Amino acid sequence: MSEPIRVLVTGAAGQIAYSLLYSISKGDVFGKDQPITLLLLDIPPMLSILDGVVMELQDCALPLLRAIVATGNEEVAFKDLDIAILVGSMPRKEGMERKDLLKANAAIFESQGKALEKYAKKTVKVLVVGNPANTNCLIAMKFASSIPKENFSCLTRLDHNRARSQVAMRCGVPATYVKNVIIWGNHSSTQYPDVHHCLVKMSGNEVACFDAVKDEAWLKGDFITTVQQRGAAVIKSRKLSSAMSAAKAICDHMRDIWFGTPEGEFISMGVYSTGNPYKVPEDLIYSFPVQIKDKTWKIVEGLAVNDFSRAKMEATATELIEERDTAIAFLAK
Amino acid sequence: MSEPIRVLVTGAAGQIAYSLLYSISKGDVFGKDQPITLLLLDIPPMLSILDGVVMELQDCALPLLRAIVATGNEEVAFKDLDIAILVGSMPRKEGMERKDLLKANAAIFESQGKALEKYAKKTVKVLVVGNPANTNCLIAMKFASSIPKENFSCLTRLDHNRARSQVAMRCGVPATYVKNVIIWGNHSSTQYPDVHHCLVKMSGNEVACFDAVKDEAWLKGDFITTVQQRGAAVIKSRKLSSAMSAAKAICDHMRDIWFGTPEGEFISMGVYSTGNPYKVPEDLIYSFPVQIKDKTWKIVEGLAVNDFSRAKMEATATELIEERDTAIAFLAK
Repeated sequence: MSEPIRVLVTGAAGQIAYSLLYSISKGDVFGKDQPITLLLLDIPPMLSILDGVVMELQDCALPLLRAIVATGNEEVAFKDLDIAILVGSMPRKEGMERKDLLKANAAIFESQGKALEKYAKKTVKVLVVGNPANTNCLIAMKFASSIPKENFSCLTRLDHNRARSQVAMRCGVPATYVKNVIIWGNHSSTQYPDVHHCLVKMSGNEVACFDAVKDEAWLKGDFITTVQQRGAAVIKSRKLSSAMSAAKAICDHMRDIWFGTPEGEFISMGVYSTGNPYKVPEDLIYSFPVQIKDKTWKIVEGLAVNDFSRAKMEATATELIEERDTAIAFLAK
Repeated sequence: MSEPIRVLVTGAAGQIAYSLLYSISKGDVFGKDQPITLLLLDIPPMLSILDGVVMELQDCALPLLRAIVATGNEEVAFKDLDIAILVGSMPRKEGMERKDLLKANAAIFESQGKALEKYAKKTVKVLVVGNPANTNCLIAMKFASSIPKENFSCLTRLDHNRARSQVAMRCGVPATYVKNVIIWGNHSSTQYPDVHHCLVKMSGNEVACFDAVKDEAWLKGDFITTVQQRGAAVIKSRKLSSAMSAAKAICDHMRDIWFGTPEGEFISMGVYSTGNPYKVPEDLIYSFPVQIKDKTWKIVEGLAVNDFSRAKMEATATELIEERDTAIAFLAK
């Protein structure tokens, strides 16, 4: 067995982490032979709850989990990290303006970017989940300039999985029979779930999604809004935001970074936009179709983009530019 | 791939189910080739929350999960079941007497026993988790007389895992290096976590637990009370009862029923006590060391029981007899 890797989860006393920590600790993400030291960061008022989570992780009797460090201290949490999964962020509270939310989170991710820069390994892979995930990721990246920009990504895999599952249910096939959906842009309601390159396995053959679903109006209408607004629909029913499905998506995302994507498939993740083939504006964390090999992602090239898609890709880019500029303006003050 | 098996989880909108459903649906319990139809039962006020859980299960995009049925109707929920995991029960509320709790739960498990009898397959495997788990299990069993008594069990695997992990942490080894702890009796604070037959792998050799830990006072004192009171300690920190670790234990328990226990190892589960080698009173669901093969458990025989252990095994049996008699007296009214 190899040496333990050091994996940080922030917001560790929260409900996404509660669903996530077990999967990480049992080997679903980094493999069944990879021991783990788990670093759990949360804000001081949550540390007692976090103690309870640590007890439960112990009670799971998991062989790969070699040590657990629960802390409110960034230096302790970010020290020598191999993996940082930044789940914690300031949630939107009743009556809070979107700008206030951006401001509060810009400050958190500035601090965590600096902590990454100062304490983590330069090879650390950073996944930002806390919302607004794309912009938080960009801020953290900017304050960790000695860590390669390619090491940062944000989660749009939950949207990707939702899109996949919506198509699968419509076609009456298991979700794994649907591949190559794309989430473009921001992990927000402006995201564009695109099925123009999606394939569905039907009776043994791979069929283009539009031919499999046979309902263009749905694919260009309700399908898109269902995926865009799925998070809100879950909150409405469950009275809590998505946690189980978010944790599952985090595992998918990180496992693909670690072990690569299957041949011929691509997945969606928010990555740094610079000189990309789709003319997405630069200096954003934008969700693209990517393939991963040797722990390195590459944007899938050569996919045709029609006018319908182009307009939606631009709309979500516009929102991201505005988020970025608002956040950076706050930090400059 | 085989036909889907029908798996019921009750209390499906609750927090243990929330941690459990994902593991079951992804193949951690019944294997990666076993498709599943998930039946989710909860009381009517919880059905909207349950809808949100169903959405999230869909959003996990899991290939083995073929259908999900969320319902408040026992006939729908118990129909043709292969597996019943009865998590839901009346929780103890502030000011509620223990007798009232027993009474409320006796009524629930009478009803569910009858539903098993009427609607489930005769081969159904029933795991009771809802507390008081042993007595609830006994009641359900008594009202499902055409289903073999051996098909019923209650969860003490969480206690078993806790005991294993406490010894492992004390010895500085992974939890899987500790085997053959025993939980005797009731899943309550009278349970007896027994390490007289426990082995610990130290530097490649299997060593008796007392020799590995080298602290008899701890093993006969604080170790036992820590395991007995671990649930209360988690609630105190987390402000919520154990869910992640309970779900993990449910998976361990059910996977062992499905696939068997490893050669030379035994685990703890609450099973029907009848003519057992340890002279535990009959007609109780009592936690024993068992081995499982071909989906059939067998109590491990021939383990020496000293006076220390005997007294503790009797104390927990006494509690179970009292619980049983109280519950049955209510049902007779």
